[in-house]
Amino acid sequence: MDQSIQEKARAAKEASRVLYTCSSAKKNSLLRAIIARLRSNTQHILDSNAEDLARARENGSSNVLLDRLTLDEKRIGQMIKGVRDVIALYDPVGRVIERVKRPNGLRVEKMRVPLGTIGIIYEARPNVTVDAAALCLKSGNAVLLRGGSEAIRTNTTLVKIIRMALQDVRLPPGCVEFIDTTDREAVLTMIAQDRFLDVVIPRGSQQLIRFIQEHSTVPVIAHGEGNCHVFVDRSADLRKAEEIVVNAKVQRPSVCNAAEKLLVHKAIAQKFLPRVAARLRTAGVEIRGDEGACAILTNAVPASEADWTKEYLDLIIAVKVVGDLGQAIDHINRFGSHHSDAIVTGTKSNGEKFLREVDSAAVYVNASTRFTDGYEFGLGAEIGISTQKLHARGPMGLVELTSTKFVVHGTGQIRK
Amino acid sequence: MDQSIQEKARAAKEASRVLYTCSSAKKNSLLRAIIARLRSNTQHILDSNAEDLARARENGSSNVLLDRLTLDEKRIGQMIKGVRDVIALYDPVGRVIERVKRPNGLRVEKMRVPLGTIGIIYEARPNVTVDAAALCLKSGNAVLLRGGSEAIRTNTTLVKIIRMALQDVRLPPGCVEFIDTTDREAVLTMIAQDRFLDVVIPRGSQQLIRFIQEHSTVPVIAHGEGNCHVFVDRSADLRKAEEIVVNAKVQRPSVCNAAEKLLVHKAIAQKFLPRVAARLRTAGVEIRGDEGACAILTNAVPASEADWTKEYLDLIIAVKVVGDLGQAIDHINRFGSHHSDAIVTGTKSNGEKFLREVDSAAVYVNASTRFTDGYEFGLGAEIGISTQKLHARGPMGLVELTSTKFVVHGTGQIRK
Repeated sequence: MDQSIQEKARAAKEASRVLYTCSSAKKNSLLRAIIARLRSNTQHILDSNAEDLARARENGSSNVLLDRLTLDEKRIGQMIKGVRDVIALYDPVGRVIERVKRPNGLRVEKMRVPLGTIGIIYEARPNVTVDAAALCLKSGNAVLLRGGSEAIRTNTTLVKIIRMALQDVRLPPGCVEFIDTTDREAVLTMIAQDRFLDVVIPRGSQQLIRFIQEHSTVPVIAHGEGNCHVFVDRSADLRKAEEIVVNAKVQRPSVCNAAEKLLVHKAIAQKFLPRVAARLRTAGVEIRGDEGACAILTNAVPASEADWTKEYLDLIIAVKVVGDLGQAIDHINRFGSHHSDAIVTGTKSNGEKFLREVDSAAVYVNASTRFTDGYEFGLGAEIGISTQKLHARGPMGLVELTSTKFVVHGTGQIRK
Repeated sequence: MDQSIQEKARAAKEASRVLYTCSSAKKNSLLRAIIARLRSNTQHILDSNAEDLARARENGSSNVLLDRLTLDEKRIGQMIKGVRDVIALYDPVGRVIERVKRPNGLRVEKMRVPLGTIGIIYEARPNVTVDAAALCLKSGNAVLLRGGSEAIRTNTTLVKIIRMALQDVRLPPGCVEFIDTTDREAVLTMIAQDRFLDVVIPRGSQQLIRFIQEHSTVPVIAHGEGNCHVFVDRSADLRKAEEIVVNAKVQRPSVCNAAEKLLVHKAIAQKFLPRVAARLRTAGVEIRGDEGACAILTNAVPASEADWTKEYLDLIIAVKVVGDLGQAIDHINRFGSHHSDAIVTGTKSNGEKFLREVDSAAVYVNASTRFTDGYEFGLGAEIGISTQKLHARGPMGLVELTSTKFVVHGTGQIRK
């Protein structure tokens, strides 16, 4: 066990006690100090990033990875804008969300408080270092960061900069701790620190997230996969349906809220499938079909059983013809990943039934699944998208980085 | 791996799909059917319980355990009253708790929905079988129960009765599944069913809870220990303080919200400690003290370092004299278990500082810690008390057995 990781977790916990009672004004002054330090150290960041990039090229990293890793002045500008957006967000800490007066005179309130210490485990993108730290700090939490090995120099520099800002406003450096050993052992040590960490949020591949869920003694908020569906009902406006399906599939196929499956009511399949297939193929999408779909789309690839549970994150879609709404809902609840699912329908009661019965983090009527996102839902920011049901589900903003406590005002009450 | 446990978890998951969309009226008719079946099968329950009790006596069980295990007509009556109370509770499922209209016209709502399938792991008390099932069913959840070996016959009978009631109202028997193998292997298999279980709630010893936290791949809501404090400030009304300390310590010393520690401001220690000590000793309480307390209470036992973190669940209290409010808060945050902590003070700003800075599930000013309880806080019922910070903290009622989903109403919106 790496003692230094335990020490960092302990230091973060100590610092979280200071952040716990920080005013919004104090936390915003910290965020402004981070912006100032990012600005005055831009060249320093770019130099560290150049080192990471050189190493990644030597190791023959893919273009996708190199792109994720790269920072330039524009991306640093976006980082700074991100922090500025967090300053503008309403601070949920201290807000009383429930209040009841009991017959014995006790006033019982439920108040939002920081979670305490948050562990974030992420991979290549160095902007997560600043984004995640800003959200955690604004919500009064200390953070223990563990980024990927590819971005280790960039991340180390970014954390140094944030800690200069902490010093500028006289907050303890432990508010933001960074683990600079990047092997799996380090992750194992980190997720065993349940004495000091209140939650771990992994962001990255499904393998990484699964590994953490299996081994963590710290509660985990998991960002699961998105096997998202669009169901086109018999009463759908087919022009709208076409736009929604194409948008959900091709606007950004590599993300978790992109559609991976298309279900079509049998009554309109003959009419709808050829037109939407033509649009999808023009956009480079490979179409796989069940028997019903392949009978209409003669050059579709037959889908295998495994296709129905798969998240492609690519220009592939599997299409199924269903007998009715109930069959569509049942298919989505059984084979989907409970992330984001949509119905396109002209029948109000069918839309309502779909919204009620589909058990997913976000359910849509007549809109693209691509809207599942903290900004699009009006949360102002996003630390991730939860596909679990405890604590937070769907896009997570500042409020999801808080807990609550019961605050009880008495005048000498004792229990009989 | 015990296949039958996996099959039960799967059956519960299947049944949870039916409960997910059940109306409140339907769920209440189920609860009424459970009451009717409990009434008509009272003798059957008592017979099974007598078998468990005979076996427990043979095994030389303690009187405490035998008392926990025992059912009689009165206790069955209390069980029935518990179910009736749950019928009267407001059903949180379907309630829209947030609503926002986005600039693009999307209406985004956050709606309460059932968690899905809840695993409950508990020990001797058979009433948990009925209480927990009623709360889970009312909130639209299927439940997989695993009770202790001592109560196996009673629990088996109670589950049979509940399943008769499920049949009476034509709901699938899988809504309430029961694991009748009681070894640790069975628990291990159960807490590996993350495909089918959405949460596990362990109720029992700290060892059991710790074991489950360490091994579960299903999210856990932990009922941790209660090392609760009362701090008597220099400005406290000493008569009220005395009543609160005595109540918090002796009214029911075996429960998690009983006080285990007394902190006293040095300015009033000389005056207050002898009188409260006399009251506590009359009630049979052993007093352990730090140096300051032992100087005043000459026949107190010196407290060891380990005392400050200990949950006694017994007629023992450790007493410490502190220099000021800040020191009291610091001690509680460092050595406490973040369950329930109280200040007795006459100074409003000190009360407010304590409520703000003590990081516990329930914080009190001028009241006994014994009120940390779902009924006392007005939640109407209680499935347990969470000492973790994610999802639920403090007493958990029906709302804490729900998740949420984002429900999005569009008119053809796509993402640019």
